[in-house]
Amino acid sequence: MTKYPNIIQNLIDEFSHLPGLGPKSAERLVFYLLKQQNEFLINLAGNITSLKKYIKTCSSCFNFTTKDPCEICSDSKRDKNTLCIVAQPQDLLVIEKTGEFNGLYHVLGGVLNPLENITPDKIRIKELINRLKNTKIKVKEVILALNPDLEGESTSIYLTRQLKPYKIKITRLAKGLPMGSDLEYADEVTVSNALKGRQQII
Amino acid sequence: MTKYPNIIQNLIDEFSHLPGLGPKSAERLVFYLLKQQNEFLINLAGNITSLKKYIKTCSSCFNFTTKDPCEICSDSKRDKNTLCIVAQPQDLLVIEKTGEFNGLYHVLGGVLNPLENITPDKIRIKELINRLKNTKIKVKEVILALNPDLEGESTSIYLTRQLKPYKIKITRLAKGLPMGSDLEYADEVTVSNALKGRQQII
Repeated sequence: MTKYPNIIQNLIDEFSHLPGLGPKSAERLVFYLLKQQNEFLINLAGNITSLKKYIKTCSSCFNFTTKDPCEICSDSKRDKNTLCIVAQPQDLLVIEKTGEFNGLYHVLGGVLNPLENITPDKIRIKELINRLKNTKIKVKEVILALNPDLEGESTSIYLTRQLKPYKIKITRLAKGLPMGSDLEYADEVTVSNALKGRQQII
Repeated sequence: MTKYPNIIQNLIDEFSHLPGLGPKSAERLVFYLLKQQNEFLINLAGNITSLKKYIKTCSSCFNFTTKDPCEICSDSKRDKNTLCIVAQPQDLLVIEKTGEFNGLYHVLGGVLNPLENITPDKIRIKELINRLKNTKIKVKEVILALNPDLEGESTSIYLTRQLKPYKIKITRLAKGLPMGSDLEYADEVTVSNALKGRQQII
C-alpha cells in the first residue's frame, strides 16, 4: 500500500484543487472528516449540493440571491437613482456593512484583464448600460467601487468612457490613507493620493 | 442586506470550522463553488458522504481500509513477525512510501497527551498488547515510529514499559540530521542526537 484507498485519495485530490488548499491541507481535511460523525458529512454534502440549487443571480443587479429580484432591488425604501458598481458579490457586502449606502448595486462579475482574456463582453457592462437606458427608473449617479489596483483602475476608466454619452454623474471611492495606518510606513502612491484628495476642514 | 443568503452563509460557517480554514478562506471557497458546474458540486458532495460509508478501520492494524482485514494485513508476502507502531494512518503511508519496511503495522490512533486528556485507554494500547499475546503469530520485533516530540517520546517510553514483560525486541526510528540539512543551522538537540547515535563506517 503506497497510497490511500481510492475514496480517500479522490477526495484529497478534489479538495487540493480548491482555492487556498494544497495537497497537504487537503489530506488533513479528509482525515478530519473521517473522524467526524456521519451526520456531519451528510449535512456538509447537502449544503454543497443545495448551493447551486437555491442560489441564483438577481436579474437586475446580478448579486447572488434566493429570490429574484433580490432583497435589495425589491426594497422600496432604497434610492433607485444611485447605482454602485462593484466587481463581485463579496464587495457588495463590504459596502452594505458600512451602512452608508442606500442605493442599488450592479455586480459586474469581474474586472477587465486582457492578460486573462477578460474583455468588456465578459463582464456585465452591456447589462449596466441597459439599466441606464431604462427611462422608468432614471439613474442619476453611478459610483464606481472597484479596487484601486491596475485592473480596477483601468475598468473604471473604460466604464467612464462608455457611460459618458448618458450624461450621468459618475463618482468613485476616495483614495487615501486607510484608518489606523501609519504615515511613516504608507507607500508613496497612497500618500500622493491622500494629498491630491485632501479635504478642507475649516 | 448585511449578510449573505443563509445557504451561502451556512456553508461558509461550516467550512470555516474545518482545520486550516478561516472565515475568509471559507468565503473564498464558497464563491469558488458557486462558479462551478452543478455536476462538480454533486460529485464533491457524493465523495464526502461516501467517505464514512465505505471506509472502515482494519480490525487488526486499525488503518483506514475498504476491506477488512486491510491490504497490508492480508498480504501473505509480508513479515508478520515485525510490527511497526504509528500514531496515525498518514504516518503509516510515509513509512510505506520508503519501501524499506515489509512487516505489519499497528495504528495507535493518537499519542498520549495528558493536557488534552488523551490517556492510555484512549489510544489502542490494549489492542496492541492483545496482538502481542497472540501465540499463533509470534511478534519478534516492535518498531516505535512515533514523532520525536514531547508527546511522541513520552508515548514511546510508556509503551516500552508496558511491552517489557513480553520479552520482545523493541526498537525506535533513528534520531539524527535530516537529509539535505545544514549542520550550521541544525538545532542543538538534533546535533546532540546525531552525535549520540553516530554509526561506525570503517
